[in-house]
Amino acid sequence: MSAYATLERRFKRLFDIEGAAAILNWDQAVMMPKGGNAPRGEQTATLAGLAHEILTAPETEDAIGQAGGEALDDWQRANLREMDLRHRRATALPGDLVESLARATTLCEMAWREARPRDDFQALRPRLEEVVRLVRAQAAALGERLGLDPYDALLDLFQPGLKRPAVDAVLDLLAEALPPRVEAAMARQAPLVRAAGPFPVDRQRALVRDMMRRLGFDFDHGRLDESAHPFCGGVPGDVRITTRYRDDDVTGALMGVLHETGHALYEGNLPPDWRAQPVGAARGMTVHESQSLLVEMQACRGRAFLAYLSPLLQARFGPDPAFEPAGLTAFYHRVERGLIRVDADEITYPLHVILRYRLERALIDGGLAVRDLPGAWRDGMRGLLGVTPDTDREGCLQDIHWPTGAFGYFPSYTLGAVLAAQLFKAAKLARPSIPDELVEGRFDGLMGWLKAEIHAKGSLLPMDDLIVAATGKPLSADDFLAHLDERYA
Amino acid sequence: MSAYATLERRFKRLFDIEGAAAILNWDQAVMMPKGGNAPRGEQTATLAGLAHEILTAPETEDAIGQAGGEALDDWQRANLREMDLRHRRATALPGDLVESLARATTLCEMAWREARPRDDFQALRPRLEEVVRLVRAQAAALGERLGLDPYDALLDLFQPGLKRPAVDAVLDLLAEALPPRVEAAMARQAPLVRAAGPFPVDRQRALVRDMMRRLGFDFDHGRLDESAHPFCGGVPGDVRITTRYRDDDVTGALMGVLHETGHALYEGNLPPDWRAQPVGAARGMTVHESQSLLVEMQACRGRAFLAYLSPLLQARFGPDPAFEPAGLTAFYHRVERGLIRVDADEITYPLHVILRYRLERALIDGGLAVRDLPGAWRDGMRGLLGVTPDTDREGCLQDIHWPTGAFGYFPSYTLGAVLAAQLFKAAKLARPSIPDELVEGRFDGLMGWLKAEIHAKGSLLPMDDLIVAATGKPLSADDFLAHLDERYA
Repeated sequence: MSAYATLERRFKRLFDIEGAAAILNWDQAVMMPKGGNAPRGEQTATLAGLAHEILTAPETEDAIGQAGGEALDDWQRANLREMDLRHRRATALPGDLVESLARATTLCEMAWREARPRDDFQALRPRLEEVVRLVRAQAAALGERLGLDPYDALLDLFQPGLKRPAVDAVLDLLAEALPPRVEAAMARQAPLVRAAGPFPVDRQRALVRDMMRRLGFDFDHGRLDESAHPFCGGVPGDVRITTRYRDDDVTGALMGVLHETGHALYEGNLPPDWRAQPVGAARGMTVHESQSLLVEMQACRGRAFLAYLSPLLQARFGPDPAFEPAGLTAFYHRVERGLIRVDADEITYPLHVILRYRLERALIDGGLAVRDLPGAWRDGMRGLLGVTPDTDREGCLQDIHWPTGAFGYFPSYTLGAVLAAQLFKAAKLARPSIPDELVEGRFDGLMGWLKAEIHAKGSLLPMDDLIVAATGKPLSADDFLAHLDERYA
Repeated sequence: MSAYATLERRFKRLFDIEGAAAILNWDQAVMMPKGGNAPRGEQTATLAGLAHEILTAPETEDAIGQAGGEALDDWQRANLREMDLRHRRATALPGDLVESLARATTLCEMAWREARPRDDFQALRPRLEEVVRLVRAQAAALGERLGLDPYDALLDLFQPGLKRPAVDAVLDLLAEALPPRVEAAMARQAPLVRAAGPFPVDRQRALVRDMMRRLGFDFDHGRLDESAHPFCGGVPGDVRITTRYRDDDVTGALMGVLHETGHALYEGNLPPDWRAQPVGAARGMTVHESQSLLVEMQACRGRAFLAYLSPLLQARFGPDPAFEPAGLTAFYHRVERGLIRVDADEITYPLHVILRYRLERALIDGGLAVRDLPGAWRDGMRGLLGVTPDTDREGCLQDIHWPTGAFGYFPSYTLGAVLAAQLFKAAKLARPSIPDELVEGRFDGLMGWLKAEIHAKGSLLPMDDLIVAATGKPLSADDFLAHLDERYA
């Protein structure tokens, strides 16, 4: 067997272990009783340790070295590149750090699930301090191995190749460009018409499942469930998304599900021949987020799709001025200085991300202690958005990311929004019928283009090359700002 | 580190892998969309392969040899004995056979889930033939390694130490003793009063959850869900049982849940200090089944508990003559020559087991081909019970066991029923207040005794010693037959 073939076998095994862990993670968020936390933490730590052993084994390193000299096609060559990156990352970390991180983040996530509804930051604090301590050790070790600044090493974990200068270029521009646009949009927007409600949750469930099918989600290969924090999990072939319902609001669950469906379609359309290999995985979190935001923000909150949605909502929940096209537009294009990131509109959302980016950089650099996080959060919100939370539940307890150890993830939301605008523009140029299709609730043209240009390519190309191949130019905030100026003019 | 301590670390890891697989198995039966079958089969095969590697590693063998010479207490010594048994079993099987079995049984179970409702034995046949082929190879290899007849090697997998002569001694006696008792009980029994119904499934769910709490089930450490074939899964600390509901019958789900709760309490009460080690596991399937049947058949179908249940059922579903104590007794002590094992009463149930025992021995010995199974099943039912199924759905497709590769399991149901009668008699002798407690729906006395005598001992003692320690004598059918004669007199 060639060294390359040996590697494919090893990484297939790794894929299965990580797939098992993904299902356990879904179960933990959706199904597991809270007393299951202790054994689950042990299981996930052990699986993480096993995965780490496969990645770091001397045989893996030897085979990577040898395979470089073997005759490989483009996909195999790209696969080897991704294997090598994963190997180098993994060998940067001692096995006990990997297991400690898995255990600490499991415990911290569970503490967060209890602390958030109680607004009890102090109950979370010791768990989060432990996570931050371990993530700083992780960042330092990764940075040293990859020749990166520690925080860049965390960015790279979620979106390979992404570094602070590129993040700063987009976020600094948006920090300047957005506040006047928030101001202008708020001054200009139509008054909000609240839908009367209540909206029975059963009917919401039926509506969002219909929308998922329309987008192409296959319920033979996935599920929709409920969890405190919506996410897309599972594995290709069994993709599991979650949402949360409120009976006084149908719009939140609907757009949340459309968003997660964008993620799920990316996972479901990854190249089947390379499913169990690193090159068959999604290209990174920025690209992933571009897929969810393209569906939610670009396509489904656009006037074309809202025209389709309007009669559907009225058929299911009764006639309501809020569900007329003008009402939906007023609602879905509403701009507000709010406290909650996941409820934010697309103009203020990047400001929420900028806050988190600054705070997590300071947590990792050591310039901010966990105990000072609630105060720093309030100060940051006041400075960026002009609003201040009264509670930590509406402040630094609102997100799941840090308790689960995901530092370096937040920038991908906004870079993803920027990429979504760029891709949507390119898609419409390539397939001019897309806007007319959206008026009819059809996604074939858009999804066909995305599948060919993004999904089916997996990790074949580096992110920058993927973007240039699909859109003809590198990532830039221009199309995003033009999109805002068009929608909110 | 001592060799023994090294072994504890290795078996802790094995425990976590098997726990992860148990959750995946639960998910597959309860949650997974059918398209998830392919990736799930790969995941479980890979986890089985990893577990196999840990068990068969030369380091495991070396450490077992060395640990035998180290100073160990009783629990450690028993743990080493269980480790050695698992090691010897695992080294009997080549790794590719383990992975093939995991994959084939996953595919066969899924085929069974589709074939059963369609009564389509031919759709299952090729999958089941593959499973039988692989289980025969497994039995031959195990038997050779352990010095056992191939079928005994399968019995031993589910109940260590159990062999055909002991099974034959009980089953041959029952094959003689039961048919006249079926005859007598049917001639003597009160006419059945059918409850009017329908019984809304939501109210059934609430009732069975109340009963579970009453028995001591902790919903912070477990779940109740629905699946085609009820089972008890998950891990200690997160025990997951399932049932199925019918809105025209409340008695089936109720007794099914009480049965699975008996299993769940055994798992939940296993010795916490030894939870992650082989000696901390349940003593085997015969003992496991004794716990579920003790709760269901001995305690909850007895007149004392039915007196407690009667007003509860009437409060929840309205007054009904069928829910009066006499009606419940007539129903729960009903004896019928039925087609379905899981619906069988306690007198005919062993005859269903005897049929399966004979057929699976023939499948493993090679005297029966899978293609001839439907006919052999019909002939056997006619001979043992005097009834013949019109469909395979009510015949050889009714059970999940064979499709999942569980040959050698069925005898444990009846040996468990026999042991349950013996344990219940001993419990009442030790704690004479138990019958009065059951009239009040209290299980403290019974569960306290079972926890001390059975649950908390894990696998410390071999089954025979455990039974003698708890009841003062070896396993015998006497108490079971005496119980039948008392209940059905």
